[in-house]
Amino acid sequence: MNHIQIPEQVIDELKCRNNIRQMLAKAQQSGSMLRPHFKTHQSAEVGQWFREEGIESIAVSSVTMANFFAQQGWKDIMIAFPVNLREIDNINKLAKQVRLGLLVSCEGVISLLGKSLSSPVDLYFKVDVGTHRTGFDPANIDLIENELSCLKSFDNINFRGFVAHAGHTYHAGSTQEIISIFNDGTKLLKNLREHFSTTFPGLIISWGDTPSCSLVSSFEGIDEIRPGNFVFYDLMQWKLGVCTLEQIAMVVAAPVVAVHPERNEAVVYAGAVHLSKEHLLLPDGRTCYGMMVMMDEAGNWEFPDKKVFVGRISQEHGIIMLPTEMKNSLSVGQLIGIVPVHSCLAADLLK
Amino acid sequence: MNHIQIPEQVIDELKCRNNIRQMLAKAQQSGSMLRPHFKTHQSAEVGQWFREEGIESIAVSSVTMANFFAQQGWKDIMIAFPVNLREIDNINKLAKQVRLGLLVSCEGVISLLGKSLSSPVDLYFKVDVGTHRTGFDPANIDLIENELSCLKSFDNINFRGFVAHAGHTYHAGSTQEIISIFNDGTKLLKNLREHFSTTFPGLIISWGDTPSCSLVSSFEGIDEIRPGNFVFYDLMQWKLGVCTLEQIAMVVAAPVVAVHPERNEAVVYAGAVHLSKEHLLLPDGRTCYGMMVMMDEAGNWEFPDKKVFVGRISQEHGIIMLPTEMKNSLSVGQLIGIVPVHSCLAADLLK
Repeated sequence: MNHIQIPEQVIDELKCRNNIRQMLAKAQQSGSMLRPHFKTHQSAEVGQWFREEGIESIAVSSVTMANFFAQQGWKDIMIAFPVNLREIDNINKLAKQVRLGLLVSCEGVISLLGKSLSSPVDLYFKVDVGTHRTGFDPANIDLIENELSCLKSFDNINFRGFVAHAGHTYHAGSTQEIISIFNDGTKLLKNLREHFSTTFPGLIISWGDTPSCSLVSSFEGIDEIRPGNFVFYDLMQWKLGVCTLEQIAMVVAAPVVAVHPERNEAVVYAGAVHLSKEHLLLPDGRTCYGMMVMMDEAGNWEFPDKKVFVGRISQEHGIIMLPTEMKNSLSVGQLIGIVPVHSCLAADLLK
Repeated sequence: MNHIQIPEQVIDELKCRNNIRQMLAKAQQSGSMLRPHFKTHQSAEVGQWFREEGIESIAVSSVTMANFFAQQGWKDIMIAFPVNLREIDNINKLAKQVRLGLLVSCEGVISLLGKSLSSPVDLYFKVDVGTHRTGFDPANIDLIENELSCLKSFDNINFRGFVAHAGHTYHAGSTQEIISIFNDGTKLLKNLREHFSTTFPGLIISWGDTPSCSLVSSFEGIDEIRPGNFVFYDLMQWKLGVCTLEQIAMVVAAPVVAVHPERNEAVVYAGAVHLSKEHLLLPDGRTCYGMMVMMDEAGNWEFPDKKVFVGRISQEHGIIMLPTEMKNSLSVGQLIGIVPVHSCLAADLLK
């Protein structure tokens, strides 16, 4: 590794590959397909590590990302975000090059989409399994049937199934609650698949979110899973009980630029434009924007004996809150690492 | 303006130029130099608007930004961030091309810096006027004197003065409190200038932060001001009472991708990777990640009669919380705008 001068992401390839293999093994044992969400890393190189494990189908969250990975040779790409009709020209171009999956998440969109499509696409209905961000209400079968009835006018739309992302697992109070969300949500999807499979044979259900996919022991009966964050994990997943600190595969390298032992603090060059402003509450009530790791010049990191957190953050400054016995342990010019609260946002900022 | 397809920043040039002129006029009336902080916009074009008003000296917050603006022809650049010694090679290159200002904010740095510099630089001491982020304690004159005594070993360092950024104005409860912070903080700087001006003739003091620079009526006695955010302003400044909504000169264009009138919500393609996760609390206790404006296809915006906020956010999703009477007012494929909570972070994400 070259001498690191400015904040950048440092990835532990071995940990990353282990995270991939572990998720893939569980999917294979369950007879489910792993369609990893590449919005977490947005990296050609990390994508290649998935490819080497046999992965051929991916999810992304924008047309821009879909284009990027199409250029990297990926041929089966789901844009797991409600279709943005303003990008129809790029969608049509992309649909000529790859097997493209699109999502609709409310009524009235199919007819607008169908009229504008010039190439065939796979279409999925986004289902709201309790996050209430977007998606069809799975209890409102009439609405779903009505919306699906528009499909017959459009030859370019191949209805493939129902997808859900249980974002509310991120607010769960326990790992047991996360597993319950999985059980309840996948049951809703299975019911939809059963209800519509006569009209649409071969319909699949696809389930997202790293917390539940990491914690459950099997995906049996679920055709496809789409976790993304698990490739890196992060502090948020650790706090939820989803991963260990040792599984976290990405940190942000941060040069120390000032030391203030008089108040047990040090300042690093790593702020909101590198880590994002994502934060979490520590058990003692303090706000935390990341956790410090010691880093050598080769980019290897290890956790200090005591946990040390980033307590405040501004555009480029991160403030490290040092325990008293460590107040003199950092020096200006030194490199440390910060485990991000949310690796997807940090990776997006540093890509 | 071209047809907008994805989230991008839309700048109202007229509002922007008015914001620049207003701050510059107050600086000129006070006999102070305006050295605008360009970290807010990071834009060659907006920089040009400053240049057209006669501005020649700027502040930035990284060597990377300094390089960018040096390439745009700027010749007097202060890096208003504690010097990152790991970038010494780039600093030396830059110091050959432009008049470069560097900051030190704790003891022990001058000797490390001095040994590594190969070209002359201006040096400023960062002073902590109450934010407690970094900087020298202005009450600890002995420490400052001791650190300044290292200077005589290094011919390449031209000590120029004391700088402060009163970041705690952002946590003030009233505009009066912001003005008090200004009065107290600038007094500390003036005392330092007086104390050290015999040893260092021509010493200057430089004051930052948009809230105080916008609210005070005069900068008399302050050699230089370095506000940045005022060029755009944003919701945070509006909430502090620093600007009006009409002065805000930048919004993020956001395509509507789903509508959910059943719960008074709509979903836009504009999330944490476009707006940042910066948020603020509304008077009614709700969290807010931005404010909606109506936008025409030419990118002009106006505020709806009722204030409408972004209530939740994830990587690419923004959730618009519509008043009941507006629940059917948005449609999929439409373009709206979001006034960001923190324009510096949104501009960094969308640059």
